[in-house]
Amino acid sequence: MSRDTTREAARRDRLRATAAANGLDAVLVTNLLNVRYLTGFTGSNGVLLVRTDGADVFGTDGRYTTQAGVQVPDVELLVDRGTELALARAAVQVGATRLGYESHVVTVDGLRALERATGEGGRGVELVSIAQAVEALRVVKDAGEVEALRRACAVADRALAELAAEGALRPGRSELEVGRELDARMLTLGAESPSFETIVAAGANSAIPHHRPDATVLRDGDFLKLDFGATVEGYHSDMTRTVVLGHAADWQREVYELVATSQAAGRAALAVGAEVTAVDAASRDVIVAAGHGEHFTHGLGHGVGLEIHEAPGISALGAGTLSAGMAVTVEPGVYLPGHGGVRIEDTLIVTDDEPELLTLTSKELLVL
Amino acid sequence: MSRDTTREAARRDRLRATAAANGLDAVLVTNLLNVRYLTGFTGSNGVLLVRTDGADVFGTDGRYTTQAGVQVPDVELLVDRGTELALARAAVQVGATRLGYESHVVTVDGLRALERATGEGGRGVELVSIAQAVEALRVVKDAGEVEALRRACAVADRALAELAAEGALRPGRSELEVGRELDARMLTLGAESPSFETIVAAGANSAIPHHRPDATVLRDGDFLKLDFGATVEGYHSDMTRTVVLGHAADWQREVYELVATSQAAGRAALAVGAEVTAVDAASRDVIVAAGHGEHFTHGLGHGVGLEIHEAPGISALGAGTLSAGMAVTVEPGVYLPGHGGVRIEDTLIVTDDEPELLTLTSKELLVL
Repeated sequence: MSRDTTREAARRDRLRATAAANGLDAVLVTNLLNVRYLTGFTGSNGVLLVRTDGADVFGTDGRYTTQAGVQVPDVELLVDRGTELALARAAVQVGATRLGYESHVVTVDGLRALERATGEGGRGVELVSIAQAVEALRVVKDAGEVEALRRACAVADRALAELAAEGALRPGRSELEVGRELDARMLTLGAESPSFETIVAAGANSAIPHHRPDATVLRDGDFLKLDFGATVEGYHSDMTRTVVLGHAADWQREVYELVATSQAAGRAALAVGAEVTAVDAASRDVIVAAGHGEHFTHGLGHGVGLEIHEAPGISALGAGTLSAGMAVTVEPGVYLPGHGGVRIEDTLIVTDDEPELLTLTSKELLVL
Repeated sequence: MSRDTTREAARRDRLRATAAANGLDAVLVTNLLNVRYLTGFTGSNGVLLVRTDGADVFGTDGRYTTQAGVQVPDVELLVDRGTELALARAAVQVGATRLGYESHVVTVDGLRALERATGEGGRGVELVSIAQAVEALRVVKDAGEVEALRRACAVADRALAELAAEGALRPGRSELEVGRELDARMLTLGAESPSFETIVAAGANSAIPHHRPDATVLRDGDFLKLDFGATVEGYHSDMTRTVVLGHAADWQREVYELVATSQAAGRAALAVGAEVTAVDAASRDVIVAAGHGEHFTHGLGHGVGLEIHEAPGISALGAGTLSAGMAVTVEPGVYLPGHGGVRIEDTLIVTDDEPELLTLTSKELLVL
């Protein structure tokens, strides 16, 4: 029984339309994540030639012949150790004269090799940059992608819930121990891997936005900031929760409530047509009004999908508007150097109605 | 207390010598692994400018200011969101006229941006390819790297020993369950992550060299092939063991003994000055002589370090000789399609004496 490849075929057709609109005969896709998006292939070497005449070719090497047959049954297969150059030559052989390539991915040395391979035999081929063309398609997620994101977020939710219920987040343990336990639990629950290097930051370390977990021991009264995610079917979840150990001081409750209010405002601003700068401002203004603008030192959020960080960026420096089907994070933070910090982050899908919240862990201040 | 950065400083001096020998004023290192190698920096954004006059500059963005101070205390720090271009401009400002860059890493779009940044103000800078210059240094490991590799291999050894002792490798379990447990155990034992997507292949799947674990259930009489590794301090271990579940049939013992003999021959051939093709042949000849040459479908091994696959490649298509301090795998296999396969793989260090074996798990045929 073959895999259902309807979604991947539809994605290739969208790229084909882009290629035709740019007067290209074919496009050579070498970004492995883009190849996965367009074919479903999950191996470590795959290249795709999308031809405007519809006769696409998928290339890989001998290690993946079987896997390619299972995962990419609907595209002609070319097996060659020099996959990329072999596909470029194949394009020349069927008469391509304008060949698109991913200039944001192909290296300087790689382009030289492509020029040599396509120039053999004296036939001239124009290599044309199509930087970010596939990434532009990937910004809006289809139903299959949203389902994978839902599952990735559910794994992260459940891993945190289990650790909290088992008392794993308690004074006396180290950041490293908690981080490894969180990572291991996500794997047990079905993650392919953590989405990124899990952040566990206790006490004063919670004021460092991207603290790397170390031997620091959790203590009573600490903020404990956890920023982590699970990868499922290649799709990444991203969530941050900040809890307090033992009992919360007044200043901690104040900072937490401020960030929670800011985060709710950011989520409420996620609407089709909204400028990303306006979404950032909706959340940031709450923190600025409370006099903590200088303590919110990063952008509000980012797109998430086959990469943990992808378009659209949601920040004061961003550009563009939101569309239905975009998957984004909303993650304001207030960091008080030397004292502690709070970040609250969800992954959500922009819809024509309210955004769909994928990370379902409570955002009430949890005192463990 | 500052970190001891003697090793990283010595590595930068080796690159400086390469740069001077090529008439360069400075080299812009953008491959993040190469930056880590030369500085010890483990963040996700770092660029290094190595100047022949010794006044190196390390660049990162505001997220990593604190981390850079701790990890790279001995190099001048430049903090800028556009790290790469800022460092290139810094090189121009101190009068560089020939600037090396990594043409195997810098993309076509990236080179255009570098040309624009260094061409501002009309001063001409020649951008010169230094492809693979740092990788060439990385081939021979220093004492600190060998120690990290030892620890990475020890984590993998122990994870497998624990799972075997607990009876986790038994009929009725699925490949996916075993793989996830192995990954989780390595994390618990101190791995930063698995070195690569762990291969668990049972029964007929063991005949697929790079099988991805799936829902296949382990059965009595199966070969069970496990190819996995742990990452510690950024360094990767790589080990394959093949066991039999329940009891071994004669054909399984025969194939196993053949691969074990071939692997021992490959290890014995690891010597300073040996041609990589000769090492491959020493192992391969054993399998060819037994009539199974066509069932050994890949190269014998590869270098391992900050990357799971790096130079030198050890295969019939390779080139060059071995040096003391190289870290390599030796991993012959015999794969009988539809029946099963055996691969046995170790990670070793080439020395002036016998190679040092880092993966210590027994290679006797284990029947679980």
